[in-house]
Amino acid sequence: MLSDKIVLAHGSGGTLMRTLIEELFVEQFADPELKRMDDAATLAVAGSRIAMSTDTYVVSPIFFPGGDIGRLAVCGTVNDVATSGAVPLYLSVGFILEEGLPIADLKRVLVSMSEAAAEAGVRIVTGDTKVVEHGHGDGVYINTTGVGVLAGDTERGAANCKPGDRVLLSGTLGDHGIAVVSQREGLAFSTDIRTDAAPLNHLVANVIEAAPAARCFRDPTRGGLASALNELAVASGVSIVVEESAVPVRAQVQGACEMLGYDVYQVANEGKMIAVVPAEQTEAALEAMKRSPYGEDAAIIGVVEEASPGKVYVNTRFGSTRIMDMLVGEQLPRIC
Amino acid sequence: MLSDKIVLAHGSGGTLMRTLIEELFVEQFADPELKRMDDAATLAVAGSRIAMSTDTYVVSPIFFPGGDIGRLAVCGTVNDVATSGAVPLYLSVGFILEEGLPIADLKRVLVSMSEAAAEAGVRIVTGDTKVVEHGHGDGVYINTTGVGVLAGDTERGAANCKPGDRVLLSGTLGDHGIAVVSQREGLAFSTDIRTDAAPLNHLVANVIEAAPAARCFRDPTRGGLASALNELAVASGVSIVVEESAVPVRAQVQGACEMLGYDVYQVANEGKMIAVVPAEQTEAALEAMKRSPYGEDAAIIGVVEEASPGKVYVNTRFGSTRIMDMLVGEQLPRIC
Repeated sequence: MLSDKIVLAHGSGGTLMRTLIEELFVEQFADPELKRMDDAATLAVAGSRIAMSTDTYVVSPIFFPGGDIGRLAVCGTVNDVATSGAVPLYLSVGFILEEGLPIADLKRVLVSMSEAAAEAGVRIVTGDTKVVEHGHGDGVYINTTGVGVLAGDTERGAANCKPGDRVLLSGTLGDHGIAVVSQREGLAFSTDIRTDAAPLNHLVANVIEAAPAARCFRDPTRGGLASALNELAVASGVSIVVEESAVPVRAQVQGACEMLGYDVYQVANEGKMIAVVPAEQTEAALEAMKRSPYGEDAAIIGVVEEASPGKVYVNTRFGSTRIMDMLVGEQLPRIC
Repeated sequence: MLSDKIVLAHGSGGTLMRTLIEELFVEQFADPELKRMDDAATLAVAGSRIAMSTDTYVVSPIFFPGGDIGRLAVCGTVNDVATSGAVPLYLSVGFILEEGLPIADLKRVLVSMSEAAAEAGVRIVTGDTKVVEHGHGDGVYINTTGVGVLAGDTERGAANCKPGDRVLLSGTLGDHGIAVVSQREGLAFSTDIRTDAAPLNHLVANVIEAAPAARCFRDPTRGGLASALNELAVASGVSIVVEESAVPVRAQVQGACEMLGYDVYQVANEGKMIAVVPAEQTEAALEAMKRSPYGEDAAIIGVVEEASPGKVYVNTRFGSTRIMDMLVGEQLPRIC
């Protein structure tokens, strides 16, 4: 049920955002691609197939340990395009600048964007700039939209997971969310936790080369691993069982989550990729991840099952099993 | 020369915005497509050519006579893609919602977007939603990014104008800008001036069919006819001479401009297209415009000349000639 006004939790990546998207956007725009609710649309263009994805970045503050809104804006959209299995080629960029923003800050953000684009191997080809009065923005908001090209006809959407598949994660959870919140709140305990924001298109391409039957990819951003896996479980009509002891989390991040009352499975990541692969290609996919940039801590974290479709479970370190729920309400507003 | 902070005029469509784009964005991103400074990039994808364009819409207020931010967000980007000669196919949409926005307002905007997309024949295929705290947005900001397909190899960029070409305009100037400012300021004199926001992709396709050698298209949005023609003159290294008496302007709009101290050539339009065509195809192009939706008031307004490259002149009704300057400073902030 929708409320009558927008609240922060409508942007959380959790259940309220999902309701808003399903009941309002998907309903009104009524497009089959939108309805799939994948991170990227896959589209026919003159006999070829392209992937297209968009994200607006409103992270606060715009500079944080290990990165800034510019690096985030390039990596986030590159990764969303890559989840479809496409090779990202082109980015557009739309800026909303707030009156009073220091030009030096804007330059710093642009340098980050250039560097991240060069690393990902994508071109920034078109742009737009709007300025709003002081008090109607927050320094800078950035939209990037990415286009990539798909080789072959393989669909790697969220609905492709099958019982028996394995779930891989490319590295440690929670770094981005904790880095931003520590900067925002001036928390001393986490001074060396840095964002993981990184372009993962090369990692995805390596996994597809090693494991051509890879079912799907998803990057666990807003709403964290919990939202991403729940979306896969619902879209595929399967359940997913995660082994807590197999999920890589830095001790400092785990400590920060406990202190702040966050569930690390619900904290945003900006440089991690989930891959679901058939059992027989699991080892090849894991090896490919591990030898890719940003994949050294990759691990097999779970398995896809037939029973209880739409549910995600965690086998805890203590031998019990609990449900891994999507975020309800808002945990960390403006994390990306 | 750049100042050290962002000011509203950096978003004006005038000279300060051009300086910001040239000295900062084009310089830093260093991409040949960006450097062309056309409204859309034209790009190779798997043996095909696509066009891509992005725009963020921050118009205030979000509802105004004849339209709203939703209609604007679809039409503006469809038109930018169409300026390249491409057939627009797909749109992404990124929302920044301000906490407290009534859901009913958002629904109204979405309905407008759906209707405009249906009229243009484009699909909204992927999206993103962010929410910012009250006081860090203004109801709703929308980014749309469009992708279209280009048939053939013809380049119709801003650098293509040649001496002897004719300049066509698809209809009356200034309607959008005056409609928004009248709503914003509660001006009683202009109650029946409505935005011209409209999708012009069918009009452009009709002109190309009738005048295949059409050099280029541009929609005179922020900065108005003056910015658009100056950009063409600079990019092509030509001058453009406009006949004031040939430029269609509604009497009410002209009156409002005089009262408010605006130059109608610098006021934003959202449903008008400039076409530059070789002399011998002028009549065919004009007829095609006139029989297209939104083209009934089309007119031949000027000619391209070799002398004084980069300048735009107006032959006034009084027999004198003056320079048609780009906007300096800010005239109407947040007009689109």
